[in-house]
Amino acid sequence: MKYTERVEKWGVFELCCTGKAVADPFAVSHIRATFSSAHERKTVSGFYDGGRVYKVRFMPSFAEEYRFSVEGDVLDAPLSGTFAAVEPSAGNHGPVGVRNRFHFAYADGMPYFPIGTTCYVWELQSDELIARTLKTLKASPFNKLRFCVFPKSYCYNAREPRAYPYEGTPTDGGNVTEDNVEGLGPDTPGNQWDFSRFDPAYFRHIEGCILKLQGLGIEADLILFHPYDRWGFSTMTREQNEFYLKYVCARFAAYRNLWWAFANEYDFIKSKTTEDWERFAQIVVENDPYGRLRSIHNGGPFYDHSRPWVTHCSIQRPPEGTADWRQAYGKPVVLDEMQYEGNIQFAWGNISAQELTRRFWEALCRGGYGGHGETYVGEDLWWSHGGELKGESPARIAFMRKVLEEAPAGGLKPKGMAWDDVCAVPEDEALERESGYHLFYYGIHRPTFRWFDMGNEDDYDVEILDTWNMTVRFAGRFRGRFRIELPGREYMAVRMRKA
Amino acid sequence: MKYTERVEKWGVFELCCTGKAVADPFAVSHIRATFSSAHERKTVSGFYDGGRVYKVRFMPSFAEEYRFSVEGDVLDAPLSGTFAAVEPSAGNHGPVGVRNRFHFAYADGMPYFPIGTTCYVWELQSDELIARTLKTLKASPFNKLRFCVFPKSYCYNAREPRAYPYEGTPTDGGNVTEDNVEGLGPDTPGNQWDFSRFDPAYFRHIEGCILKLQGLGIEADLILFHPYDRWGFSTMTREQNEFYLKYVCARFAAYRNLWWAFANEYDFIKSKTTEDWERFAQIVVENDPYGRLRSIHNGGPFYDHSRPWVTHCSIQRPPEGTADWRQAYGKPVVLDEMQYEGNIQFAWGNISAQELTRRFWEALCRGGYGGHGETYVGEDLWWSHGGELKGESPARIAFMRKVLEEAPAGGLKPKGMAWDDVCAVPEDEALERESGYHLFYYGIHRPTFRWFDMGNEDDYDVEILDTWNMTVRFAGRFRGRFRIELPGREYMAVRMRKA
Repeated sequence: MKYTERVEKWGVFELCCTGKAVADPFAVSHIRATFSSAHERKTVSGFYDGGRVYKVRFMPSFAEEYRFSVEGDVLDAPLSGTFAAVEPSAGNHGPVGVRNRFHFAYADGMPYFPIGTTCYVWELQSDELIARTLKTLKASPFNKLRFCVFPKSYCYNAREPRAYPYEGTPTDGGNVTEDNVEGLGPDTPGNQWDFSRFDPAYFRHIEGCILKLQGLGIEADLILFHPYDRWGFSTMTREQNEFYLKYVCARFAAYRNLWWAFANEYDFIKSKTTEDWERFAQIVVENDPYGRLRSIHNGGPFYDHSRPWVTHCSIQRPPEGTADWRQAYGKPVVLDEMQYEGNIQFAWGNISAQELTRRFWEALCRGGYGGHGETYVGEDLWWSHGGELKGESPARIAFMRKVLEEAPAGGLKPKGMAWDDVCAVPEDEALERESGYHLFYYGIHRPTFRWFDMGNEDDYDVEILDTWNMTVRFAGRFRGRFRIELPGREYMAVRMRKA
Repeated sequence: MKYTERVEKWGVFELCCTGKAVADPFAVSHIRATFSSAHERKTVSGFYDGGRVYKVRFMPSFAEEYRFSVEGDVLDAPLSGTFAAVEPSAGNHGPVGVRNRFHFAYADGMPYFPIGTTCYVWELQSDELIARTLKTLKASPFNKLRFCVFPKSYCYNAREPRAYPYEGTPTDGGNVTEDNVEGLGPDTPGNQWDFSRFDPAYFRHIEGCILKLQGLGIEADLILFHPYDRWGFSTMTREQNEFYLKYVCARFAAYRNLWWAFANEYDFIKSKTTEDWERFAQIVVENDPYGRLRSIHNGGPFYDHSRPWVTHCSIQRPPEGTADWRQAYGKPVVLDEMQYEGNIQFAWGNISAQELTRRFWEALCRGGYGGHGETYVGEDLWWSHGGELKGESPARIAFMRKVLEEAPAGGLKPKGMAWDDVCAVPEDEALERESGYHLFYYGIHRPTFRWFDMGNEDDYDVEILDTWNMTVRFAGRFRGRFRIELPGREYMAVRMRKA
């Protein structure tokens, strides 16, 4: 048994045990450990990591002494020990959770505003490409990355992944081309997999990627199932799926930056029913001792986000309905797919940087959070492979993120919206009153002036934001009814605060 | 009794009688005439036109001999006579009606594609400004004009109209300013009107304007009621409204280019109920012997366009719902207000020319018809006053009109729409099959190429349309599955026809 005797609060304590060889080593029932401290007590399953190695991972939530005991039929005898969880280092704010119904915060109380992007299978590319992706992410505004456990087969996704999650051999890839995947799907012949035997190296590699993201302050929004498949990973049996879910829970749940995204486009996975998804959710709820964030992303119709296990709405749709979805579900609204900046053949992947930036602002001012993706024709498309960003929206999204971070804490909510104008104020009513913060956003509208009536009680400092050109200009201090001149261009905003 | 002995089919035959002075001359019950020919027989009410003059107007629908007889309590004795309705001259195609459920045609069978604009009170401006408006219209693509019988009081509408519809004196205008009409409304004090006495000159002037439009091939979409009022014309009693409706029917119904728009923004006229609108409709149906087109325009929620008297949906909304509204109401969908090109303070009046043009194309490709308006800050705003057009959308709308006129007859309908892509094909299924006409429109989307599969039976001639730069480029002749390269810009369309 190996382990480190000191670990940060919200870090990962890992037990590494040598165990017996068994016929079905990947069943998580072979090893489990109980951790206890003054403030918590958790029993977690371990997992088989190849050779004769069994591991148990645990995230302590308190900076204090922990005791643990390990048992399991692969061990000769129960084991036990202690370790110290110490205060977190500077970049460690703990896991993200839902803070005030519609917004998120880290466990240490620091607000977390999701500014997500999507690179579906970036971690299954070459080391060189992965390194480039991480370098790009480091310089980007993004603090959440959506990606899949399973490889992706689709237009622009013809090449094989770097490895496979199961022992076996894949189909030869059939006739997939960059333009056309007709006739390809999970029933493509030629796959030979042993769904009872994972390749531990595959999952170890993903863990490395999750930790690299953690080092960059990026949440790993890990997609458990998706429909774009020529290997049969989307049509495993119910038992195989449950086996898989327990294994990934045992391996991944301890990482504080992990989120569970049950599906990309659950409704496009025709082999699974609502009953399946509910059962999957139950398994993850039971096998994730930390209650990581959980969502399920639609292609067409939404999943029922009011289900208790859904922590936030992960939505594919333009942002104009954000306020309605907040009301309908009473949960944070994250628009993980609002169409992507790019120029490929599909409508979902060929909007302009201006339009994607606009959608981010619309989501923000309606009390939600947009998501980015990029699909410019080329060898590697950011949306799937990572690499470098070619687009013009990330710089504007960074500008928006700064505006959001300068707002009163706790996120924004939409204020009475007339026509297409939107206005955001602090979610917290006390902060709203105290700050007088208002963020008006005009999107495609081009007023040359606007009248405001802020009442006669307070002075307001008024700034004009050009969200495309990324400028902030102080317009003056006003009270009562006043007129602000604007440039008659698209993508302008007005920010006000009590002086 | 004066009248012309020869009149064009679909022209106006006007009887002018000298009658007795009566206490309530404007009641249309004082004079009526019956017209009969081999193919039709109609009895129509006349109207008082000032002095001792009573008039009766009639539109013959057949080129043949007509007999008429006039009677009424203001006449000493019944009168009668005959006239000849002759074949229409070149520009006279008769009144527009609904042709094939979702589209319009003139009475002679020529298709009519509404390409409307709005100048709410252009006819109540100075002669000089009216002349400029007509000159602008003549050079424009527009063939329908929405405007009001009653004057308008609103932002940018502070000045008094050239005249008033009733005998009396108006309010002094109160504190209306270009930016602010708060506190102004139909209950503004100081108005003194005799709602039983119209000013015939006011209505005669409007008739002149209707005829000027007719001369330009423009339909007069005449708005009977609207909410933007400081004179009390929007809050007359039920009896006064009925009196008014019968009078305008008697005066205007015979003009073949007249459409009845019961309201601009019926739901913003708080003084009127659904019962009122239904009663108004009944009066117009009973008093308009020609069954002119009838609509009622919303501000927020739609009126129930499935009501039998509604001939087409006049809608204020962006065009994305067009296909749904076609299905819901089974009638032509005319998007008379989709927001206007301009730069005023309001969201409804400050979209770009690109965006308004895009909305026209979206409406077209979803089986409906867009409407134009222009609101650039200045002395005269086209949307209300007419004058000159400053914007860039009319030229693009003219290009779209040409594309529409080059399509197979009978209008377009939407074909299976995936994501945000739209494709229009001929409404008529036989024409659809025969022509193979497809109009794909990409809007804000920017594909650099598209794949098509048109089947192996026919060759297709493919053209690439740049709807903003107004160009058509032949891309080649193709069959089966083929790829078309596109420029990766917004606002592109692809047109195909069987070779």
